[in-house]
Amino acid sequence: MGHLVDRRRVVRVRGAGSPQASSTARPDQLAVEAPLTLKVGEQTIATTMRTPGHDLELALGWLVAEGVARSSSDLTELTSCDADTVRIGLAAGVPVPQARLGATSSACGVCGSDSIAEVLARRPVVGPVTLPIMDADGNRTLSVEPLIDAGLLVSLPDRLREAQRAFDRTGGLHAAGLFSAQGELLCVREDVGRHNAVDKVIGWALTHGLLPAKETVLQVSGRASFELTQKATMAGIPLLSAVSAPSTLAVDLADEAGLTLAGFVRGDSMNLYTHPDRVRVEVPAPV
Amino acid sequence: MGHLVDRRRVVRVRGAGSPQASSTARPDQLAVEAPLTLKVGEQTIATTMRTPGHDLELALGWLVAEGVARSSSDLTELTSCDADTVRIGLAAGVPVPQARLGATSSACGVCGSDSIAEVLARRPVVGPVTLPIMDADGNRTLSVEPLIDAGLLVSLPDRLREAQRAFDRTGGLHAAGLFSAQGELLCVREDVGRHNAVDKVIGWALTHGLLPAKETVLQVSGRASFELTQKATMAGIPLLSAVSAPSTLAVDLADEAGLTLAGFVRGDSMNLYTHPDRVRVEVPAPV
Repeated sequence: MGHLVDRRRVVRVRGAGSPQASSTARPDQLAVEAPLTLKVGEQTIATTMRTPGHDLELALGWLVAEGVARSSSDLTELTSCDADTVRIGLAAGVPVPQARLGATSSACGVCGSDSIAEVLARRPVVGPVTLPIMDADGNRTLSVEPLIDAGLLVSLPDRLREAQRAFDRTGGLHAAGLFSAQGELLCVREDVGRHNAVDKVIGWALTHGLLPAKETVLQVSGRASFELTQKATMAGIPLLSAVSAPSTLAVDLADEAGLTLAGFVRGDSMNLYTHPDRVRVEVPAPV
Repeated sequence: MGHLVDRRRVVRVRGAGSPQASSTARPDQLAVEAPLTLKVGEQTIATTMRTPGHDLELALGWLVAEGVARSSSDLTELTSCDADTVRIGLAAGVPVPQARLGATSSACGVCGSDSIAEVLARRPVVGPVTLPIMDADGNRTLSVEPLIDAGLLVSLPDRLREAQRAFDRTGGLHAAGLFSAQGELLCVREDVGRHNAVDKVIGWALTHGLLPAKETVLQVSGRASFELTQKATMAGIPLLSAVSAPSTLAVDLADEAGLTLAGFVRGDSMNLYTHPDRVRVEVPAPV
């Protein structure tokens, strides 16, 4: 049985936008996300991002849904051959499921590190928040350039919902919105699939010559998965903000790619899981 | 631009489990879900379930995330050649993206009807709620056999959350629970992907010799997509109950497959989108 949750360091921001704004670093528990590969012999028939645990049940249930297995007698073998692979043996006469075309997962490695490396290999990443500069004595130091104020960032979920309310009369649509660092709503799109909503926003940005979208924030209505983090990274978006929780693999990719990942952005608080320096928490004293 | 929402008939149940229980039929607005196929020449490179509209942006954004396109100059063509297909032309030197293995979508048709037909072709469907019987005069009539009381059905989301609370300390996990028609929790599983949570439950049912799971209810913590409806159908589960909204294609498949689909199951109310006869709304008068 795998573990459902794992710890990551998080910067918890409270009172965003007020003079009492504060931030504290602490460990937080996140849902684990990692790829699972299903193989028949040496042939990979599917890869899915899942939470480890009950992997054999997952493989069996997937085979039922695909119309391959109806009972245990359709299988001759079902083995977890390592932490992220299930090997399936099919009884005589049971056809091997065809590889299907999927737009929703780009995982093809056998572990989370492979998945991250695959994304990072595709193009330059978002990059570090801290830039090397020379101080007065000619020494190399690090300059922090915040992208957005915490008080502005916590306002984006409501702004997204307002824009969405005009369209969504169903309660069934996810939304993604691209905002400028000054809080201007550039584009909002909706879809039953949150990954599709993000694809539409990024496609809009490409057609408007805005990629890489260096000075923007991507706000999403749900959770932050590996897949959404990948899409933001590939579009050069420096900050992904989610109303709900991120997964471990989303955090790990954001960390390596140099992306700032905010989650649980609600009311006047948020969690910053990676690269918190892009968010200015302190409110400047009035002059 | 496609349409985001469409109407379906729904039976709205209020006051479930009380003597004042009532049901009314009315049209309701649902988020549209339909497959989109991306093609380079005649080669299908991806199929995704999406809400129609902004399909070209969706295709572009997907190409960015896959590392294929970085600017418009990477493309020579981008055309919606019918309602559910986008044709892509790639500039010289831009590699055609490899078909990826995906476990999350089984859509491979060019429209929703094809997707439904494909599922129904795989095995016998859940079947009708009403069964033919003979009356005293030997005439064939229809007998309605409710599976579950509405008052019991509305209690399942809380029961699922209680079972989940023991595990989910992250706010980031979906849950699926299989219940008997008498309300006994048979199996609960969690995952970052709701489709995985359902696969795990169905895999559990297979290993316990419970497929087809004729006398059960599958309760899920989120929305009801085409994919979840497909999984319930393939497992022979007669009732899928979701805390949130279903999509049009989920309703259409449930309708054809003979599955009862309940959505917005909250408090003492619910929407029954298909085959409402499996849910007994009236509370029997005390004897």
